[in-house]
Amino acid sequence: MVSNTQVIFAKVPTTFPVAGEHMVVKKSEIDLDAEIPQGAILTKTLDLSVDPYMRGRMRDASVESYSPAFPLNQTMSGYVVAQVIKSNNSKFTVGDIVYGLGGYAEYVVTPEPYTALLTVRNDIKDSGLPVSNYLGVLGMPGMTAYVGLIKFGKPVKGETLYVSAASGAVGQLVGQIGARLGLRVVGSAGSDEKVDYLKELGFDAAFNYKTVDIQQALGEHCPNGIDIYFENVGGKMLQAVIDHANKFARIVCCGMISQYNTQNPEPIYNMMKVVSKSLEIRGFIVSDSPEMNEAFRRDVTEWLKTGEIKYREDIVEGIENTPEALIDVLRGKNFGKKVVHVADL
Amino acid sequence: MVSNTQVIFAKVPTTFPVAGEHMVVKKSEIDLDAEIPQGAILTKTLDLSVDPYMRGRMRDASVESYSPAFPLNQTMSGYVVAQVIKSNNSKFTVGDIVYGLGGYAEYVVTPEPYTALLTVRNDIKDSGLPVSNYLGVLGMPGMTAYVGLIKFGKPVKGETLYVSAASGAVGQLVGQIGARLGLRVVGSAGSDEKVDYLKELGFDAAFNYKTVDIQQALGEHCPNGIDIYFENVGGKMLQAVIDHANKFARIVCCGMISQYNTQNPEPIYNMMKVVSKSLEIRGFIVSDSPEMNEAFRRDVTEWLKTGEIKYREDIVEGIENTPEALIDVLRGKNFGKKVVHVADL
Repeated sequence: MVSNTQVIFAKVPTTFPVAGEHMVVKKSEIDLDAEIPQGAILTKTLDLSVDPYMRGRMRDASVESYSPAFPLNQTMSGYVVAQVIKSNNSKFTVGDIVYGLGGYAEYVVTPEPYTALLTVRNDIKDSGLPVSNYLGVLGMPGMTAYVGLIKFGKPVKGETLYVSAASGAVGQLVGQIGARLGLRVVGSAGSDEKVDYLKELGFDAAFNYKTVDIQQALGEHCPNGIDIYFENVGGKMLQAVIDHANKFARIVCCGMISQYNTQNPEPIYNMMKVVSKSLEIRGFIVSDSPEMNEAFRRDVTEWLKTGEIKYREDIVEGIENTPEALIDVLRGKNFGKKVVHVADL
Repeated sequence: MVSNTQVIFAKVPTTFPVAGEHMVVKKSEIDLDAEIPQGAILTKTLDLSVDPYMRGRMRDASVESYSPAFPLNQTMSGYVVAQVIKSNNSKFTVGDIVYGLGGYAEYVVTPEPYTALLTVRNDIKDSGLPVSNYLGVLGMPGMTAYVGLIKFGKPVKGETLYVSAASGAVGQLVGQIGARLGLRVVGSAGSDEKVDYLKELGFDAAFNYKTVDIQQALGEHCPNGIDIYFENVGGKMLQAVIDHANKFARIVCCGMISQYNTQNPEPIYNMMKVVSKSLEIRGFIVSDSPEMNEAFRRDVTEWLKTGEIKYREDIVEGIENTPEALIDVLRGKNFGKKVVHVADL
C-alpha cells in the first residue's frame, strides 16, 4: 500500500471557493498491486492543471453547461499528464505517457469509458520540453489561444489586437502569435510586474488595469481602435472594448473570469454598438475545433524549440496545494500558467 | 412655379422625436423649368421609406456612427423611388426611375456627387409590382432580411428561427424565407392582430410580447431552443433569447429598436452564456453585402410574382405625413412596412 492524496469537491461555492471547505485534500492509501477492472488503467499523475473554466464545473449538478458539473464528494478532475503503471486496456502500455482529462489524485484508476478522455502522448517523453508545457502552452490553454486567434479572430496584418488577462495561460500565447502575424498587440494584466513581462514578450503596449482608467488606456494604447479582442475577462472590460472597437471587429470569447465568482453579473450597456459597428462576438470551446490540433502542435512546438516564443509557468509543488492553486488562478494571483507538479517522470 | 413640400430635420431629439418639433414640414416653391447644375438631376418623388435606422441619423453631427447624421435645418433623406424629370447628367435620362438615398421633398435637385446614391431602376416600371414594394420587400429592408438570414444566420434545415418585430418591414420576410428553408419559425409582435397575421404567413408559432411572459413564451414555442435569432429589438428580448439559445446559436443583429429612443439603454446581464454556449452575435449593415444584391432581387421578385411570399405594407398618403409615419414606426404602430406615397408614376 502507498499513500494517495486526492482533491475532493466538497461543497458548491456561491462566490470564490475556499480551500478546505469547497475543495478538500484527502489522504488515503492505494494498493498498486491490486487487480484493476477489464478496460481500466492505473496511472501515476506527473503534473496537473488548474484553469479558470474549472470554476464553472463547481456548480450544482442540476445546472447544465458545456462541461459537466463535478460530482460532490468525489475526486475532482481536469487536464493531467500521467504515466501508465498498470494497464488492462489494449490501447495503453505500461510506461506510456497520457494526456487528457483525469482525476486529481497521485494515483488514479480510470475505468472505461473514461479512458477515452486520455490519449497516449509518448512524444512528451521525447520532446525535451518540460512536462508542464503540455498542460499550458502545448495543452488546452495554448490550443485555446491558437484556435481563438486564428480561427475566430481572423487576423489581418496591421490590425490591432487587444488581449485581457494577457500574462495568463492563454493570453501570453495569444499576444505572441499576434505579434508573429504582424498585428499591433496590446495587453492588460493585474500588476506592474506582469505588465513588464508583457513588454518583454514583445507586446507593443501593455497596462495594469487595476491602476489606470481602462477607457483612457484603451484610447491611448489602441490609437487606431481595436480590431480583435481576445476576451478572457467580461464585465466592464468587455463594455470598454465595445466602445473602442472598430467596424467589423471580432470579439473572441473563451472565458469571462470576472463573472465566475459572483452571483451578480456585471451588465453590458452598449450592445447597440454591435449593430452600429457590425461587430462579431463569438464564444468558443476549444474542444470543438479538433481540426486545428495538428497545426497547433506542430507550430507551437517549433516556436518553443526555436525560442521564438516564451511561456511563463507558475509551478506549485505537491498535489495537496491544488485547491489554493486553483483559487489563486481565479483571483489572478498566478503569474503565468499555474501547474501543480505532483511527481517526476 | 409649383408647390414643393419638404421634410426638415429641425432639432435633435433626446427620446422619441415629435412631429413639428424635431421634424418639420415646410412648404416652398420650385421652378421646374429652372436650370440645374452640371451633373445634377431633378426628380419627382413617387414613394419614400421611413425606417427605424433613421432615428440614429437624428443625432448631433459630432457623434460618429455608421450612417451620417442629418444636418440640422436641412431636408431629411432616405430611401426613395423617384422619376427623373430633368437631367444634366449623362447617367440619367428624363423618364428614368431611380432608387436609392434621396431627399424627402416632392421635387429634389440632386447635385453630384450625391447622384451616385441613386441608381436607374427602370425595371420598377415594367415589373408589374407596386412601386412601394421597392422600398420594402425588394428594397433595403428586404435585402436586410435576405442577407441577415442567409449570410449571417447560416440556416440549417430543421433548426429553430426566432424573429422579433416579426410583422415589420424586415421580420415578415425573414420568417417566410426561414419557412422556405425548412426552419421552425417563431415570431413575436406587439398586437394580437399582428400575431394573427404571422400565423397567416406560415409562422409555426407567434406571440404578442406585450401580453405574455417572454421567457415563458420562448420556452413554450421553441421547445428545442433557438438556433437563429433575427434581432430587431435588443434589451430584455435579447437577454431572454440568450437564455434560450442553443449551443452554436447565431444572433443576427440588424437593429435594436427598443434602444433607439432612450438615454438609458437596457443592460444585458447574461453575456457569460456567449462563452458557455459558443454563441455568435453578429451585427451587420446591409450595404456591406452588395455581392448578394443580384440573388436577392432575383429570388424575392420571383417569390412575390408566384405568390410564394406575401408582404404587408402600411401606406400613408402625402409627404406631409412623413414625420408621423416615422414616429409610428419607432413606436411600433405600423402594421407592415410603412411607406409614404407622394405621387403616382
